[in-house]
Order: sequence, then C-alpha cells, then structure tokens
Amino acid sequence: MVKNMPDRPIDALDRAKGKKVFVKLKNGEEITGTLMALDLHLNLWLENVDIQGENKRKFTTLLIRGDTVLYASPV
Amino acid sequence: MVKNMPDRPIDALDRAKGKKVFVKLKNGEEITGTLMALDLHLNLWLENVDIQGENKRKFTTLLIRGDTVLYASPV
Amino acid sequence: MVKNMPDRPIDALDRAKGKKVFVKLKNGEEITGTLMALDLHLNLWLENVDIQGENKRKFTTLLIRGDTVLYASPV
Amino acid sequence: MVKNMPDRPIDALDRAKGKKVFVKLKNGEEITGTLMALDLHLNLWLENVDIQGENKRKFTTLLIRGDTVLYASPV
Amino acid sequence: MVKNMPDRPIDALDRAKGKKVFVKLKNGEEITGTLMALDLHLNLWLENVDIQGENKRKFTTLLIRGDTVLYASPV
Amino acid sequence: MVKNMPDRPIDALDRAKGKKVFVKLKNGEEITGTLMALDLHLNLWLENVDIQGENKRKFTTLLIRGDTVLYASPV
Amino acid sequence: MVKNMPDRPIDALDRAKGKKVFVKLKNGEEITGTLMALDLHLNLWLENVDIQGENKRKFTTLLIRGDTVLYASPV
Repeated sequence: MVKNMPDRPIDALDRAKGKKVFVKLKNGEEITGTLMALDLHLNLWLENVDIQGENKRKFTTLLIRGDTVLYASPV
Repeated sequence: MVKNMPDRPIDALDRAKGKKVFVKLKNGEEITGTLMALDLHLNLWLENVDIQGENKRKFTTLLIRGDTVLYASPV
Repeated sequence: MVKNMPDRPIDALDRAKGKKVFVKLKNGEEITGTLMALDLHLNLWLENVDIQGENKRKFTTLLIRGDTVLYASPV
Repeated sequence: MVKNMPDRPIDALDRAKGKKVFVKLKNGEEITGTLMALDLHLNLWLENVDIQGENKRKFTTLLIRGDTVLYASPV
Repeated sequence: MVKNMPDRPIDALDRAKGKKVFVKLKNGEEITGTLMALDLHLNLWLENVDIQGENKRKFTTLLIRGDTVLYASPV
Repeated sequence: MVKNMPDRPIDALDRAKGKKVFVKLKNGEEITGTLMALDLHLNLWLENVDIQGENKRKFTTLLIRGDTVLYASPV
Repeated sequence: MVKNMPDRPIDALDRAKGKKVFVKLKNGEEITGTLMALDLHLNLWLENVDIQGENKRKFTTLLIRGDTVLYASPV
C-alpha cells in the first residue's frame, strides 16, 4: 500500500551492498564495515571492518554469524 | 467467532505497516520507528528509528533480527 | 479417557480467544490482556494490555513473540 | 527387553493424563497441577495449578511452553 | 575399524536401558535413576530417581527434556 | 586445492575414532576420553573419561550432547 | 553490481582455506589457526591452533562447533 515499500525486511539491507553498514551483536559489540554479501540468516560479509567499544580492533575481512546479530543499519 | 478477530498474531502487526511501532528486544533495548516490512520470523525493517534508554541513538533505517524481539506494538 | 479432555495443549488457550489472559515471559515480565489470536509457536496477539512489575506500561495492541513465553493462563 | 518398558520417553508422562504432575522449569520455578494434555514438544496443559517457591500463585488453567521444561514427574 | 564400536553415540546409552544411569543437566543438577526409555533428542525416562546436590529430592518416575542434558553415563 | 584437505569439518574428528580426544563444553567443563562414536550434531560417545577442573570425576562411558560442545581436538 | 562481490557470506571464508584465520567465540575465547575445512553451519576445522587470552593453549587440530562462532576473519 505504501509506495516503494520493500517486500521483505532483508531487502532493505540487501540494497546496502557495497556500502557502509553498522551492526550490533547480541554480546554488545558494535561493528562498522562495507557490506559485501548477506543471506537470509543474516550471515554478513564485511570489508574494512572496525570493532568498536572496549575491544577496538580492525579486520580487512569479517564473516559475522547471523544468529549473533541484534540489528543492522546502512550508515 | 469474535468479529473482526485476526486469524494470525502476525496479522495485527502487519496492519501497522507504514505506521509507527514500538519494539522491545530481549536485551532490554526499546526501539520506535516506522514499520516498513516484516516477516514470519518477526524480522523487522524500520525507518526513522530511535533507540531509547541508556544507549540513545538514531538510525535512518534499521533491520532487527526477529529472534531478538520480545514484543512489538503499533503506537 | 478423561471426558472433555482437550487433544492438544494449545487448545486450552485457544478456547480463551476473546477473553482475558495472563502471560509470563522468560525475562520475568508479567502481562495481562485480551487474547485476539495465537499460533502453534505461541505467538500471541493481545489487546488492552498491561505490563506489570517494575516497568509498568499499557499498550492498546501487543504482539508477543512465542519463544519468549514461559506460560500463559486464561484469567 | 525389559517387560512393560515404554517405547518413548513421552509415553510415561502420557500415562499420567488426568493425574497430578510436578514440573520444574528452566528458570527454577516449580509447578504442580493436573495434566490435561501434552505434546511432543512437552507443551503442557495443567488444571488446578500451584506455582511454588518465592512467587507462590494459583491458576485454574495453565499452558506451559515445552521449551521451558527441565523435567516433569507424575506425583 | 575398531571392533565392537557402536555406530551412533546414542547406541551406547541405548544399551543401558533397564540399568542405572547418571545424568548431568545444563543447570548443574545431577540425577541418577534407572533408564526406561530414551529418544534421539535425549529425552530420558527414568525410574527410582535421585536429584543430587543442594536440592536433594526423590521421584518414582521422571521425564527429562533432552535439550537440558549436558551428558549422561551408565553407572 | 590443498592436498589431503578434508571435505567436511567433522571428517577430521571422525579420523580420531578409537583415539583419545579433548572436548571443551559451553559450561567450561573440560573432558578427555577415547572417542567411540560421533554424529553430525557432535553428539559424542567417549570411553575412559576424565572430567577435569573443579569437579574432577571419572566415567567408564559418557554420552555428550552435541549442542553443549564448544570445540573438540584429537590429543 | 559491485565487481567481484561474492554471492554468499560463507564464500569469503571459503577462499581462506589453507590460510590462517582468526575466530572469536560466543564465550569470548579468541582462536587463530589454519583453516582446513568449513561448512554452512560454520563448523570449522583448524590446524596449528592457538587459544588466546587467559586460558592460553595450543592444539594441533581443532574442530569448532559452528553455533559457538561469533565471527571469523582471514588474517
């Protein structure tokens, strides 16, 4: 009914492929990186990754297991 | 038997698409935003999002993983 | 063997549709409201909802994710 | 090989239908009531229910979600 | 390759039917009893049961939900 | 591409059947024993078992539920 | 749309077979080792493994259960 409304929740993140995203995990860690690939479980492949908070760390490439994701947002 | 009773629990939230909803997550975070899409796992796509509580934050767009949802309510 | 014994556990709650129910969640929250719809996962749609305890709150309409339910009772 | 040995674990509780059972939940709550119905997930329908321990409470009818059950015993 | 090696892990416990077993649950409770029936989820039916530790208790018959089992051993 | 690389993660543990393995559980317990059988859920059947740490204990035979396993290693 | 973008998140880790990877588990343990095999559950087979942090330890070979993985990264 609302125009341009995506059909599935995952579609909105899918549109962010190749762009920077913010991800919060269930253990409280906050992560930013470029979204390269995702699937329906919310398994996420990020590049140029920053882990934020008390355990700051950088990764060139990171695979996040979907069941650890709390929420994700295009930045 | 009761008139206008929805068939499935999800239907009630489905009717709130395009409107503002309140969501409480299992980690205690409380979120409000405009519901753009949802699915049977309660994966939720929100726009114009406010994370409330001690970690206040705003997102233009947020994908919430359904298994982290405690409950949700049209506002 | 016992007369009028329901076949499935869910049937007993199903009979409470349109009536007030009490629900306790795994995080300890206690909720009362009118049961509008339920499914086999125990996803619950309530109307005129009171969240009890330390975080008292009211909702016109609430969708509870079934996997957060500890137990439920017709009031 | 042992005589009268039930084939499935659930069968032993199934024989207790219409009788009083004791149920311990994963959150530590202990419950007694008359078993009206059960299914393979251990969803349980009890009547004349007593919640024991620090949060004593009585219910006429209670639906326990199976995945919260630690163990159950005919009394 | 090793002689008399069981094909499936469950087979070893299956051979203990009618005998005494020790079971440790994920919540730390330790239980002994005679194994009457088991299934592939490790749902267990025990007779003449002793719950050990700080909450000592006896049951004639006990159904343990398989997903609460840490490990089990024939005694 | 790499020579002798196993196809599935489980294959590496499968090769350890009849040999001693180390297993760490999600609750922190550390266990050693001879691996007799395993399946795709990582349900493990061990013989001549030592539970290490603060709750030292020995078992002739132990069935570990796969979903409690953190990791396992041939010794 | 982006060139050389992998189709599935798992593909990026799959390309690291035979190389060193970093893995963080849900219990906080951090592990490095050579990735020998992986599957869609993120079950991981590592060789020449170092467990880091307070419980330092080395393994020649380690099988990590996929559901304990938080994230993984080629080093």
